[in-house]
Amino acid sequence: MTDYRFSKTASRLKRSEIRELLKLTRKPDIISFAGGLPDPELFPIKEVAESSQRAVNERGSLALQYSPTEGDPFLREQLAAYMTRSGEAVSADDIIVVSSSQQAIDLIGKVLVDEGDPIVVETPCYVGTVQAYRAYGADFHGIPVDSEGMRVDALEREVKSLCDAGRKPKFVYVIPDFQNPSGVTLSLERRKRVLEIASEYDLLIVEDSPYRELRFKGDFLPSLYSLDNENRVLQMKTFSKILCPGFRIGWMLGPEEVIDKIIIAKQGTDLCTAAFSSIVVAYFIEAGHLESVAAKARERYAKKARVMLDALEVHMPKVDGLNWSEPDGGMFLWVNLPEYMDAVEMFPAAVEHKVAYVIGSAFTHDGSCRNTLRLNYSYPTIDQIEEGIKRLAALIKSRVK
Amino acid sequence: MTDYRFSKTASRLKRSEIRELLKLTRKPDIISFAGGLPDPELFPIKEVAESSQRAVNERGSLALQYSPTEGDPFLREQLAAYMTRSGEAVSADDIIVVSSSQQAIDLIGKVLVDEGDPIVVETPCYVGTVQAYRAYGADFHGIPVDSEGMRVDALEREVKSLCDAGRKPKFVYVIPDFQNPSGVTLSLERRKRVLEIASEYDLLIVEDSPYRELRFKGDFLPSLYSLDNENRVLQMKTFSKILCPGFRIGWMLGPEEVIDKIIIAKQGTDLCTAAFSSIVVAYFIEAGHLESVAAKARERYAKKARVMLDALEVHMPKVDGLNWSEPDGGMFLWVNLPEYMDAVEMFPAAVEHKVAYVIGSAFTHDGSCRNTLRLNYSYPTIDQIEEGIKRLAALIKSRVK
Repeated sequence: MTDYRFSKTASRLKRSEIRELLKLTRKPDIISFAGGLPDPELFPIKEVAESSQRAVNERGSLALQYSPTEGDPFLREQLAAYMTRSGEAVSADDIIVVSSSQQAIDLIGKVLVDEGDPIVVETPCYVGTVQAYRAYGADFHGIPVDSEGMRVDALEREVKSLCDAGRKPKFVYVIPDFQNPSGVTLSLERRKRVLEIASEYDLLIVEDSPYRELRFKGDFLPSLYSLDNENRVLQMKTFSKILCPGFRIGWMLGPEEVIDKIIIAKQGTDLCTAAFSSIVVAYFIEAGHLESVAAKARERYAKKARVMLDALEVHMPKVDGLNWSEPDGGMFLWVNLPEYMDAVEMFPAAVEHKVAYVIGSAFTHDGSCRNTLRLNYSYPTIDQIEEGIKRLAALIKSRVK
Repeated sequence: MTDYRFSKTASRLKRSEIRELLKLTRKPDIISFAGGLPDPELFPIKEVAESSQRAVNERGSLALQYSPTEGDPFLREQLAAYMTRSGEAVSADDIIVVSSSQQAIDLIGKVLVDEGDPIVVETPCYVGTVQAYRAYGADFHGIPVDSEGMRVDALEREVKSLCDAGRKPKFVYVIPDFQNPSGVTLSLERRKRVLEIASEYDLLIVEDSPYRELRFKGDFLPSLYSLDNENRVLQMKTFSKILCPGFRIGWMLGPEEVIDKIIIAKQGTDLCTAAFSSIVVAYFIEAGHLESVAAKARERYAKKARVMLDALEVHMPKVDGLNWSEPDGGMFLWVNLPEYMDAVEMFPAAVEHKVAYVIGSAFTHDGSCRNTLRLNYSYPTIDQIEEGIKRLAALIKSRVK
């Protein structure tokens, strides 16, 4: 058989450009700032081992069985307690469990996006979001970000122009804290403004919040979900960045009507999230470990970010147009190269210099931002960060006109 | 906000009728044959606890990290070794790991089914399949089953008529062993015939194989995947029935081109399957526990099926049109009531009689088969099976004309 006659969706699926580039970087002597992985030294092996034992020994017949589609009740309780302790009070009934926040992103597309529907995202935008909504045939409208996050003036203009044309966006997707890939945070003033614009044009907001807990500088800002009182914010959270990615567990909150549709869509997608890992994580939270592991991550990432920023300051050439974001948390920073440089074209040379990054254009729906790149500081060691930035700076210096 | 403007897909999503009916049966004195759960007494708590400890202690930094989208390499190796020991030799490269076989069903829809595309299924058909493909707007063509499984004469007629009309089906979906919900098995002769028809009309076959290992009578039959030498069978396997459902791990094999598309689709759907549970299960298989837990399940379900069949024989009225399937394995049997009886209408009375089943029409895309019902014997205890069938028989007797 040779012609499987794939769907229209399949024709829109593209192999992630990042993954293809990353294959080039799997050599032991290459220092990679390309991944998006947490520091594995932070993984709380002992505590996870304990929680696993409790899950199997104390709740084995639940942990090994199907769970309700909306999530294991014990985990939902623990999540509500955790969020309430973190200052954003919710109840277990407000929460559904999902199999990673990537699943939440996908299910939102499934229940909201038809082919050609306009959606609004940040430029640059998390690559998994672009990939998921491209599959549904979304028509992307990118809003530039600056040091205070999504530019609300541009947001308002774009939304108005779409609405005037009778093409109201299905939603505005935003990562307000330490955005992936830019590393910037949406200021409090802009959060309020985003909600005002949403209110004025009656828009749904999708708030992806994987990094919020990883703030190592400044005050925690209230989430869009907590600031909303018009039932227009869907919030997604995950354990992948604060605890570890290996469980594939996230959670969602939002307007009941949307959540109901998502539960039905989830039934056909994977029936339910794994009870086993749900209960392991629930015991982990109950024991108070989530707060302590997040505290350790904040401390570690503050240090690594500092080392990377210092190295950039020391080694990068002082030229117009070359600058980088200074994150208050999260795992990434963003480098703007002078307009005449092309991070895509430069990539093979970087690999030759034994250093890797992600090309910024991988994070745009239209391949723009070719003079940008994303650097990850959570995964490499301190020594690697210093040496890797030295290598990257040498390469960039060699290309200054 | 009140109008979220859901997608066309969302408008096709229906809350599972089974789930709504099951809510009526959640009273402690009701004996339920309605679920599809494995017997929790079979759950190998001790062995899972051991495997969990090994996963965290020996491979913690892998188990808590992202895994490749195609699956954790150690699990893929163990799965290949397991399948090879089971008599159907494959290599690790042939296998991709998925987050439940429900996810595999969904991803197949994503990469193959456009709105209005014809697909061929059994009548009755697994409800999760109907739900998943309905969301993609599939046009279902049901083929009746008899005691030897899907009727190949009807299959050929339907495929020919569709192809003559220029509407070649995207695939034929079949559960060859102990089909859910009918309990019947596709005979060897018919397996070969299904492949011949597929070859003649150049069709893809989707072989869902969650129950194969649960054969308690007769010889294991070769899978469609193993009989195919034309790259036209996608096979889905899962741990949910042979080990337990709590891990949400399944695996897939099939034509490279289709598997490649599915990997890309999976990236946008959940990035990867949980490394944690993947590695737990891999250690479990490596220790040889999968074969022993399957052997215990076979023994237990043979006994429970026997008890249910005997009770039906003893208690059911002897009337025309009332009969049931005699499964050689799996978890279900299927009851045909006389044409004038309606299992949907009878359901509230069954709940009053303190016994529950699933209405057969829940398993058809068009609501047909209203005089049928599915009984599960894996979950209830022996005593419950005897007493429950007595109650159900009394109800049916009272409705005989």
